[in-house]
Amino acid sequence: MNYFVTGGAGFIGSNLVDRLLAQGNSVIIYDNFSTGFPEFLLNARKNKNFSEINGDLFDIDHLTKSMKDTDFVFHLAANADVRFGTEHPSKDLHQNTIATFNVLEAMRANSLNQIAFSSTGSVYGESEVIPTPEDAPFPVQTSLYGASKLAGEGLISAYCEGFGFRSWIFRFVSILGERYTHGHVFDFYNQLLDYPDRLDVLGNGHQKKSYLYVQDCIDAMLCAIQKSQEKVNIFNLGTSEYCEVNDSINWICTHLGVNPDIHYTGGERGWIGDNPFIFLNCHKIRSLGWKPKYSINEGIIKTLEYLEKNQWVLETRK
Amino acid sequence: MNYFVTGGAGFIGSNLVDRLLAQGNSVIIYDNFSTGFPEFLLNARKNKNFSEINGDLFDIDHLTKSMKDTDFVFHLAANADVRFGTEHPSKDLHQNTIATFNVLEAMRANSLNQIAFSSTGSVYGESEVIPTPEDAPFPVQTSLYGASKLAGEGLISAYCEGFGFRSWIFRFVSILGERYTHGHVFDFYNQLLDYPDRLDVLGNGHQKKSYLYVQDCIDAMLCAIQKSQEKVNIFNLGTSEYCEVNDSINWICTHLGVNPDIHYTGGERGWIGDNPFIFLNCHKIRSLGWKPKYSINEGIIKTLEYLEKNQWVLETRK
Repeated sequence: MNYFVTGGAGFIGSNLVDRLLAQGNSVIIYDNFSTGFPEFLLNARKNKNFSEINGDLFDIDHLTKSMKDTDFVFHLAANADVRFGTEHPSKDLHQNTIATFNVLEAMRANSLNQIAFSSTGSVYGESEVIPTPEDAPFPVQTSLYGASKLAGEGLISAYCEGFGFRSWIFRFVSILGERYTHGHVFDFYNQLLDYPDRLDVLGNGHQKKSYLYVQDCIDAMLCAIQKSQEKVNIFNLGTSEYCEVNDSINWICTHLGVNPDIHYTGGERGWIGDNPFIFLNCHKIRSLGWKPKYSINEGIIKTLEYLEKNQWVLETRK
Repeated sequence: MNYFVTGGAGFIGSNLVDRLLAQGNSVIIYDNFSTGFPEFLLNARKNKNFSEINGDLFDIDHLTKSMKDTDFVFHLAANADVRFGTEHPSKDLHQNTIATFNVLEAMRANSLNQIAFSSTGSVYGESEVIPTPEDAPFPVQTSLYGASKLAGEGLISAYCEGFGFRSWIFRFVSILGERYTHGHVFDFYNQLLDYPDRLDVLGNGHQKKSYLYVQDCIDAMLCAIQKSQEKVNIFNLGTSEYCEVNDSINWICTHLGVNPDIHYTGGERGWIGDNPFIFLNCHKIRSLGWKPKYSINEGIIKTLEYLEKNQWVLETRK
């Protein structure tokens, strides 16, 4: 197969690319390197079946031409920063909704009709049903990020009905692991590296979080694409456990051998639009035979080990 | 109150404007007259509390300035043509999603925070729960129109959480009545006026449809805004009855005194993305004391009477 991966230089994208190449596939990535890194492609670049295009999803001609002769699109490019949505309200709309439309139109121009999409558990807003299944009650959006991904899902589903596309839509919990470059664990590690005696925590530390290790996430996506062949295939991807922010702090501090004073900003949520509890019911993907190989604790340790060996990543975010 | 009504020269918009003026309010409409008609404003123009702005929702400066000194926004401007979505896939995205974003940003620039929005029962896709309540299982979109309105809902809800807005989101069935200018009844009347002996019908005629008379619709919106004061107030608006396309054909033919040969294109749905059965559970709005004054049959007759007296409307759509 010849895969086209938007955001292929990003955290999840580059891990997926390595996996697809290892399976003997050809991969073209399309990335503007706004949040992805060339360093994430060092392994892929050694493979003759890999090619990369430095391109923007708003350069529609370039996007359309780049997609030529591919079979299947992984659309992973996105603004993945949930937290700062209200500081630049148009960013999610452009990068997650309109960009997805551009990908769909480029596919249509190339007679491509299979797409996998990285959505998010944030589309459930603050669900009253926890753990939240894919067919939870019609959600009310609480973040611009969630709203923009929901809009992307809607466009993709409408293209399935209107243009005979087939889609795999994945609603992720937070993903952790090698090449992880934002979120709680990254922030805490970064803080403790600079000041091992103090840790500032948004919220009261009791926000419940669910994480999935990136290789487990990739296993799940590939399993779903292989085994589920409906017109629109929607899957929650997460583990069957969750932790509090305080748990992750304890694991991180133990691993690093530090004992900081913890300063909480207080309140049930870390920031406006932060969901105090995203925990997904993943029975549907598990019914296909997939299960995560790593616990949240193990995923966090693997993430820390990666960050310890790749300090350059920290510098890029300062 | 000083109301700002986008799409105020349209079918529902102009009827709402007349009502708001009759209640003694001031109204500014903002419309580009792409599908609205100056003729719909003949009554409003006699009122000193009415003003109209010929403007486009993509002229953000104009929109922002026009909204100054108003209190409450009815955002009714939209591409309301569900059927031809796949012929111009960007139209719904632009006119229903991005335009809604522009309205929200113009509100924010003016420190306005109350918005009512015309959404649609199409956001439920093909729900397995019928009649469909507001908290039906998380829907899968089946039309670009539904997807674009769902995206608009999501943006509005996220602005409520992120920027302290309050919203009233109305999921309409098809609306009928004075100034109705598209949809089944309009098409059938139009056909029968030209050729009383023949009627061409998309689908098999058994598609079930739910209609609401426009004055009942306006009653419901104003009732909800007055009595429901949550952060995000979502209401289905419809009647507790539905009809088949064939029922509406019978009522129309009886009213017109014609007996045409009926030619069906066949199939369960009239066109790609047409939902064979939209029927909304309206318990929520009825619990506030609202109920429709007119049946579907009566709404259709009122629509025909309007069209008979306003043949110019038919000409504009040819």
